[in-house]
Amino acid sequence: MALVASARDDDTKKPATLDRLTALLKTDLDRVNTLILERMQSPVALIPQLAGHIIAAGGKRLRPMLTLATARMCGYRGDRHLALAAAVEFIHTATLLHDDVVDDSDLRRGLATANAVWGNKASVLVGDFLFSRAFQLMVEDGSLKVLGILSEASAIIAEGEVLQLVTSNDTETTEDAYLAVIQAKTAQLFAAASRIGAVLADRPAPEEEALTAYGRNLGIAFQLVDDMLDYSAREVELGKTVGDDFREGKITLPVVLAWRQAGETERAFWRRTLEELDQQEGDLAHAIELMNRHGTLGATLDRARHYGEAARRNLVLFRDGPERRALDEVVDFCLARGY
Amino acid sequence: MALVASARDDDTKKPATLDRLTALLKTDLDRVNTLILERMQSPVALIPQLAGHIIAAGGKRLRPMLTLATARMCGYRGDRHLALAAAVEFIHTATLLHDDVVDDSDLRRGLATANAVWGNKASVLVGDFLFSRAFQLMVEDGSLKVLGILSEASAIIAEGEVLQLVTSNDTETTEDAYLAVIQAKTAQLFAAASRIGAVLADRPAPEEEALTAYGRNLGIAFQLVDDMLDYSAREVELGKTVGDDFREGKITLPVVLAWRQAGETERAFWRRTLEELDQQEGDLAHAIELMNRHGTLGATLDRARHYGEAARRNLVLFRDGPERRALDEVVDFCLARGY
Repeated sequence: MALVASARDDDTKKPATLDRLTALLKTDLDRVNTLILERMQSPVALIPQLAGHIIAAGGKRLRPMLTLATARMCGYRGDRHLALAAAVEFIHTATLLHDDVVDDSDLRRGLATANAVWGNKASVLVGDFLFSRAFQLMVEDGSLKVLGILSEASAIIAEGEVLQLVTSNDTETTEDAYLAVIQAKTAQLFAAASRIGAVLADRPAPEEEALTAYGRNLGIAFQLVDDMLDYSAREVELGKTVGDDFREGKITLPVVLAWRQAGETERAFWRRTLEELDQQEGDLAHAIELMNRHGTLGATLDRARHYGEAARRNLVLFRDGPERRALDEVVDFCLARGY
Repeated sequence: MALVASARDDDTKKPATLDRLTALLKTDLDRVNTLILERMQSPVALIPQLAGHIIAAGGKRLRPMLTLATARMCGYRGDRHLALAAAVEFIHTATLLHDDVVDDSDLRRGLATANAVWGNKASVLVGDFLFSRAFQLMVEDGSLKVLGILSEASAIIAEGEVLQLVTSNDTETTEDAYLAVIQAKTAQLFAAASRIGAVLADRPAPEEEALTAYGRNLGIAFQLVDDMLDYSAREVELGKTVGDDFREGKITLPVVLAWRQAGETERAFWRRTLEELDQQEGDLAHAIELMNRHGTLGATLDRARHYGEAARRNLVLFRDGPERRALDEVVDFCLARGY
């Protein structure tokens, strides 16, 4: 795609991986991974089997790394960030498992979903188990403030997922409604994970708010790119099936923007494929063609870049150092997936 | 059924309803119901719609009433029991919603399940929302001890549900394995709900343990009767479909006991119907006939009575009074459903 190639040329000097962050946090991250493995154990063997399948499947641990890095950037020197990072990952995994039930997607991270292997029932229940474990970890930590942040985030995530369900198959969904969905279902946990760093280090309110905003903006950028990739990524590269959202009639920004510019013939196409889910061979290719015609994938990436820049600005409050630089690079990583 | 009729004759003087408990707790219960309605609200309209469907559908509020009654029996005079009772009901409702996804059952409390009306997706996500709300209520209450009790209970409930899934369709399931399932999936929340009363009143450990044991024994008795009713209750009377467990191949105690006494022909029948789920017209009737032949419904009720008596004994530590008498009658209520 020409648009995508030229975007890459603008940013050739930016690293596009989480390598620096992962290297910086290696010791902490190893301990978090150990804790995750320990705390997903249960005498009921299916639980660690299924949880291990999704947790060990090469997840980037992006959200727990936000907690680890923000805590250290804020000068926190204790150990509490480890258990809370594990709690954040458990909440994320629980939502993935429940999302698998919901979305009927066949590929996640390039492996068969837990749902496809063990069925809906087990995915729901193991998700519930991990969600409960997250709260047990927080209770052991003993901070009511952190418990408040993550229980509120969990409620908002669920609201966002329900809102997504309601807007599904509705081609009249507005950009605002779409943004409300991704802010709740994705950005809320990024925000909470980042905020916890400031809470642990007992930093003043403006820093806590800046990290909350950083996480929220980063999360929005991340999801925008993710939704764009669903119409452009190559399956092998990202372990993500192209066209999942299309097949489900999920209304993401590339569709919202294409609908806005569509004439009657194109609207009839979107209605047939996304509202009525009456899809034929070649429809996905035609959808991508319409998106390219109206430049909606590029426009989605532009908005992601906008939120990414906002996330960067949220970091200026903090002292320069390896953690801040690594958190800045997380923005590049999230955006670079789209190039 | 002769067995059932004669059991009823033995107990004619026992009240079989929750009327006394409900009357005693009326003021508190009204406030809990108001709180439940308030806290299930969300700008996402589908959430209160779906949650209201299951919460307002005439649930007995048995579990929250345990918290209310034990708190008052223990001399607690504050207001905290109200929010915690609501949290208990939210956790219960979340598990019902997730159980609907799991069980594909068509009737619960005589109404169509949320699942049948709104689909699997919505049931999972609204369950997640209510579960998060429960934790928000606990965080507002501010007791880490209560948070610990209910987060542990939630993890154990999920383990129990997964264990039930694993033993499903396995006719070799033992009585011990069955008991482990119902202790986790049902009795754990009864125990936690009752224990909270002692915690709120800051009573010494022996009283906390006695109420935990009361709830656990009561919960086991309740579930035993429930599982018996699945092979004997009349649909209209209990709003419960007879034969749900049978159709799903769920291995409950009436089956475990019938399998134990079965010869090869009968075992072949159980294997075909419950393991292979190859069921024909008349199979449910034949299953009930086999259970009557071996007296396994009566034996299940006997065990329920045993746990019910244990629950009664757990109450002797507490001063006599209207709450204790009402909690004693809850045992009668749970058992009387089986007569």
